[in-house]
Amino acid sequence: MTGTVSEALRTDDPAEAIRAALARRRPRSGDRFGELTHYAMAVPGKLLRPLMLVASAEAVGGTAETALPAAVAVEHLHVASLVHDDIIDGDDLRRGRPSVHARYGVADAIVTGDALLFDLFASVAECAAPPRVVMAVVAEFAHAGGDLCRGQVLESTMVSPGATRPGSALEDYLDVAAAKTGALFRAACRAGALLGGGSAGQVDQLGDYGHHTGVAFQMQDDLLPYLGAGTSGKPDASDAANLRPTWPVLLAHREGRPEHRAAVETALSGALEPEETLELLRFAVTDSGALDEARRGARDRSRLALACLRGLPGAAATDRLAAIAEIAVDRDR
Amino acid sequence: MTGTVSEALRTDDPAEAIRAALARRRPRSGDRFGELTHYAMAVPGKLLRPLMLVASAEAVGGTAETALPAAVAVEHLHVASLVHDDIIDGDDLRRGRPSVHARYGVADAIVTGDALLFDLFASVAECAAPPRVVMAVVAEFAHAGGDLCRGQVLESTMVSPGATRPGSALEDYLDVAAAKTGALFRAACRAGALLGGGSAGQVDQLGDYGHHTGVAFQMQDDLLPYLGAGTSGKPDASDAANLRPTWPVLLAHREGRPEHRAAVETALSGALEPEETLELLRFAVTDSGALDEARRGARDRSRLALACLRGLPGAAATDRLAAIAEIAVDRDR
Repeated sequence: MTGTVSEALRTDDPAEAIRAALARRRPRSGDRFGELTHYAMAVPGKLLRPLMLVASAEAVGGTAETALPAAVAVEHLHVASLVHDDIIDGDDLRRGRPSVHARYGVADAIVTGDALLFDLFASVAECAAPPRVVMAVVAEFAHAGGDLCRGQVLESTMVSPGATRPGSALEDYLDVAAAKTGALFRAACRAGALLGGGSAGQVDQLGDYGHHTGVAFQMQDDLLPYLGAGTSGKPDASDAANLRPTWPVLLAHREGRPEHRAAVETALSGALEPEETLELLRFAVTDSGALDEARRGARDRSRLALACLRGLPGAAATDRLAAIAEIAVDRDR
Repeated sequence: MTGTVSEALRTDDPAEAIRAALARRRPRSGDRFGELTHYAMAVPGKLLRPLMLVASAEAVGGTAETALPAAVAVEHLHVASLVHDDIIDGDDLRRGRPSVHARYGVADAIVTGDALLFDLFASVAECAAPPRVVMAVVAEFAHAGGDLCRGQVLESTMVSPGATRPGSALEDYLDVAAAKTGALFRAACRAGALLGGGSAGQVDQLGDYGHHTGVAFQMQDDLLPYLGAGTSGKPDASDAANLRPTWPVLLAHREGRPEHRAAVETALSGALEPEETLELLRFAVTDSGALDEARRGARDRSRLALACLRGLPGAAATDRLAAIAEIAVDRDR
């Protein structure tokens, strides 16, 4: 990590400023607690949520610097949820390395996630904004975190074999995507707009943008295993192995011919090996035309997000937000 | 649950007001998420932390009503940590019922704890106090939560057989007790004093009281398996089964004769069944005189706590705080 936060802010590279702020908050410390939280945060991902938060602050006329502790916070929330999700899903790889529980065991991974959750609120508390505004940001993150947990539980009830009725589950899927992904994207954008001094209307507008971008992002994430390209460091077969009925799979079941429906039901029955499960789902999703429909659905969402960006004062930051909504559905990893 | 929060406050029964507020926040809801968080919070424990928080607010001249959302929050933090601790320790019983993971599985128990953690900050955000004060309470809980996690990790390094050097571990024990228990008691009292409008000196004074009471409470907790009386709904053998070198055990090792030291080392070697481990530790702790010394140590702590209560304006609330510091070391469950 080279440079400092304020240098990065001078060179107007928000990603670099966020990386520097994250590194400062999670130094490689001498004790095991520091090692655990450092390890969890050491390989930054795409930083979408903090980037959206900072851009939202600038889009309403605020500064990146005021928003930075909240940007650090939202990435902590995201990574904490990944650390706990990886335990739950039994995913041993994350960002190309062993996940925290694979490296340090389940007990320390649970505590590491908890520590990141607490520290996110400590970080928010450091925002140099009026206390009333900072409290509103605390509430945004607290409620988004609750939504995330609610989405996680809803998803697990979809997964349990008795509850899997793919034909009626498309709405559940959208509820889960809104709760598990949309809510935190939404909170990130609202937090940025609040810290940037945006009006209530602008806060809502950017919150809606965040919600739609988050759902589009989740839809695209669920398409990746069927696009055949690179991976995100997480095995393609993970969702299939966990018998998770994702967006394209649900479409294949609803829109496909009887053989596609049968393939989905066999795949989600839990009787097959992960690789066989994924192969059968690939057949159903591709051959039924569900893949193309799912891509259209994701792009429609992205366009909804873009439509929320009209009339914001900060043109350069708004362009960055638009680019994120486009990249969300135009990526192969 | 009978009555409402405001009725309970009128009848001046803080415990009843806290129970009513907790029940309102965690209604038995129709969906699984609501069921999980309701189950986790359904059997109130001693409510020490929220009672101390409310009493601290009143001790500096504030009202219970202003402090109540923070009292709800601190109990959420405590229970969230219990839910996750029970997974880590493999404790299948809590407050006389199956623990959350024993009842609903590890995945949902992880998410339940997370949901309670987020909701505690949502609850704090509802305090009807100046935003500057509420932000300070957020920071108190965030830092105490971090300390709790740090203590948890420190304790786990004490437990790992290679790291167990009982003779030199008394200081580590006190660090763990301060972080795992003292920090949250301290935060509860500081939060109450802040919300009650206390001066910086009063906030510190009550924080110190909370710290000492918390450490005394933890010391007494670790004595309970050797007092031979009732249990707290948690099996007496849990800490022994987890080979946790607690206060009286460490004293027996440091102060005892060679046979006591040998008994401790054999017990903590991990070679025995939990009941045999506990029996050997009981011999060492009782026969060496460590039990009596440990009880004196806990009582000394309690007296330190009492000494912090001088000069506070709210006499009745101060009396309640004094009673808690005394009960902390004068209980058999």
